[in-house]
Amino acid sequence: MNGGGLRRKPYESLRPFVGFNQNAMPVISTRATEMPLSPIRKLAPLANAAKARGIKVYHLNIGQPDIPTPEVGLDALRHVDRSVLEYSPSDGFESYRKKLVTYYAKYDIRLDADDIIITAGGSEAVLFAFLACLNPRDEIIVPEPAYANYTSMAVAAGARIRSITTTIQEGFALPKVEKFEELINEKTRGILICNPNNPTGYLYTRREMEWIRDLVKKYDLYLFSDEVYREFIYTGSPYISACHLEGIEDNVVLIDSVSKRYSECGIRIGALITKNRSVHDAVMKLCQARLSPPLLGQIVAEASIDASPAYMREVYDEYVERRKCLIDGLNRIPGVYSPIPMGAFYTVAELPVDDAEQFCAWCLTDFQLDGATVMLAPAAGFYATPGMGRNQVRIAYVLNCADLSRALTILQAALENYPGRKNV
Amino acid sequence: MNGGGLRRKPYESLRPFVGFNQNAMPVISTRATEMPLSPIRKLAPLANAAKARGIKVYHLNIGQPDIPTPEVGLDALRHVDRSVLEYSPSDGFESYRKKLVTYYAKYDIRLDADDIIITAGGSEAVLFAFLACLNPRDEIIVPEPAYANYTSMAVAAGARIRSITTTIQEGFALPKVEKFEELINEKTRGILICNPNNPTGYLYTRREMEWIRDLVKKYDLYLFSDEVYREFIYTGSPYISACHLEGIEDNVVLIDSVSKRYSECGIRIGALITKNRSVHDAVMKLCQARLSPPLLGQIVAEASIDASPAYMREVYDEYVERRKCLIDGLNRIPGVYSPIPMGAFYTVAELPVDDAEQFCAWCLTDFQLDGATVMLAPAAGFYATPGMGRNQVRIAYVLNCADLSRALTILQAALENYPGRKNV
Repeated sequence: MNGGGLRRKPYESLRPFVGFNQNAMPVISTRATEMPLSPIRKLAPLANAAKARGIKVYHLNIGQPDIPTPEVGLDALRHVDRSVLEYSPSDGFESYRKKLVTYYAKYDIRLDADDIIITAGGSEAVLFAFLACLNPRDEIIVPEPAYANYTSMAVAAGARIRSITTTIQEGFALPKVEKFEELINEKTRGILICNPNNPTGYLYTRREMEWIRDLVKKYDLYLFSDEVYREFIYTGSPYISACHLEGIEDNVVLIDSVSKRYSECGIRIGALITKNRSVHDAVMKLCQARLSPPLLGQIVAEASIDASPAYMREVYDEYVERRKCLIDGLNRIPGVYSPIPMGAFYTVAELPVDDAEQFCAWCLTDFQLDGATVMLAPAAGFYATPGMGRNQVRIAYVLNCADLSRALTILQAALENYPGRKNV
Repeated sequence: MNGGGLRRKPYESLRPFVGFNQNAMPVISTRATEMPLSPIRKLAPLANAAKARGIKVYHLNIGQPDIPTPEVGLDALRHVDRSVLEYSPSDGFESYRKKLVTYYAKYDIRLDADDIIITAGGSEAVLFAFLACLNPRDEIIVPEPAYANYTSMAVAAGARIRSITTTIQEGFALPKVEKFEELINEKTRGILICNPNNPTGYLYTRREMEWIRDLVKKYDLYLFSDEVYREFIYTGSPYISACHLEGIEDNVVLIDSVSKRYSECGIRIGALITKNRSVHDAVMKLCQARLSPPLLGQIVAEASIDASPAYMREVYDEYVERRKCLIDGLNRIPGVYSPIPMGAFYTVAELPVDDAEQFCAWCLTDFQLDGATVMLAPAAGFYATPGMGRNQVRIAYVLNCADLSRALTILQAALENYPGRKNV
């Protein structure tokens, strides 16, 4: 009954070929062609080649902290008492989601466990938010410079990002509301912000958040708000979450991740949070299609919520020190300028070079100081507007102060020796 | 410099509203609306309600084996010696990919480590394959019944599945080649098979695989081949991988996962394998956008490759026994018919009922035998053709024989008591 092959003709019976694509290889999708290379990772082959030549590379290009993961998270891992590593629920373990409710309450974000969907990192939350909320050719407005992977995820969903330029001269504050309204048309479906901001470290003010709220309300937009850096705010200014804004509760889709909070980038645990049940249910269809978020990561993330206040304070203090060390150091290098980031652990700095991407590549291919060099992320990849950020880099302060100081010395020497140096 | 708010007008300066979407909530995307609910998970709320009433539910609906994960994998977890749970490379650890090369060689699948991209489960591999290879409105041909999540992932990519119906009467063998050719048009971009098959347990014969190869070659199609059940082939028939087919090396995209192989569904480790560099590089853009596959899962999966032959044999023998127990038992129930599955750990069985979905729901809401009931997956959700599979269910033999026997007794009693019983 299951032998196969019965009553079948040999393959010669294929009907005459009528001809398309003949002798051509199948081609990749248009979206794959349009998708940008990551500005954070595109120079990785050059870095690998440098390392193969025995050169030490200080990685300031990627938001991979060297901060230890909380012991309580690692401990949970060592004591996993399961004989079968089973699927977890598609929206994540209820125990973890309930515990997250108490975590968010500390930030005055009031949620039910069912408002929270656990995702494979913040990345999956962004992708699923776009797939669930945006149709092909729909537009979202994103202040630039912006985390480059938003563009990739938007392209994956067929949606378009319209950029509002913020400038280093204004410390990356939002331009006035009219600039947003100039971009709004019948295709506009949402605004996306990252707050505190990657790559600029900017923290949106209450006034800015209220402008955004009013735009969202007036034009009935989604507000996608990536707030994965809320632990890292340095200026005493208040953290205004999209979830704090009244009257747009059903418009907000919060993107979150434990990657940076607990230095657990590898476990791929994020969250998509919304009070909009239609969005929730649509995202759940995607979640069921991918079955479940990572089991082991959830175990670590759930345990990490109990990280001691001492651990969290120590991490915070460490970033405060690094920020000071990096920003002071940068602004002391002739021709270099960095605003003071208010949050996250990045800054966008201006360098006295013709083309920052060429400079970053040159640091890896043609420069070393006592056997070491630096890897930075060219900032142009964080802007959608052509020509913007050409003399800027994003620097992540994810190394300790000794390493940061060393990296700054190397950067200064590199800038002095770079053939494309521009005197400013 | 970073205070924000300078030179900005109060929000009353929002320009007069010109009107679209007014007073409407933002709506979800068309693709989210089109995306089907998982036939495997859609009855979960009814199962939860039954459990809340104190009823034991035998889960035959989902491919979650109760087989223990290999000790060597769990051990690797208990001995993770890392202080920072960092990102892994976007394509996965090289050490793991190299070890996979030796794993595949045992199946005469010849790969380089760079042909392999580690993904968050086979699900992500399917999604990324579709996003990288298919444009909106492109079509792929899929024999039905088929794993329901292919449809969800195709919808996510804007692509369309055209179904070739296979029938329980023919043991789910492929229909003749002409049936495929009737569906091929200028939008056709690929064929997708799952071999051994979920949900039918069918194993494609060499002749069928050669037909597929010739179609792929003639019409320049992608061949997406999901072979996650290759360890579970019971009939002595040869396993013909898509990677064994000569002359279409650049057309093949292999989907894989360790979920079933090592009973590690929760760790979310799969792979997308291709020798086509354009596809590889396109998928890598998506991989970089989501940063990295799960770190901890990779550690477990890499260690699990060293699972002892004794473990693998024991698991295999266990499924052989379960298959016998289930299929014999099913075919002994009056009015029930199941072909003998050749591989995987599912079967599609015909029941003497008016509507299998209603029957499955009724088992959870209205029936119990000594405080227990069964949960099955209605098969209609595995067919794209309306009306197909209405009296069929998918049954996963992921429970031990004692539990399977008990579940069969319950199923028989349920069928005797079901008001919608049809005498056949």
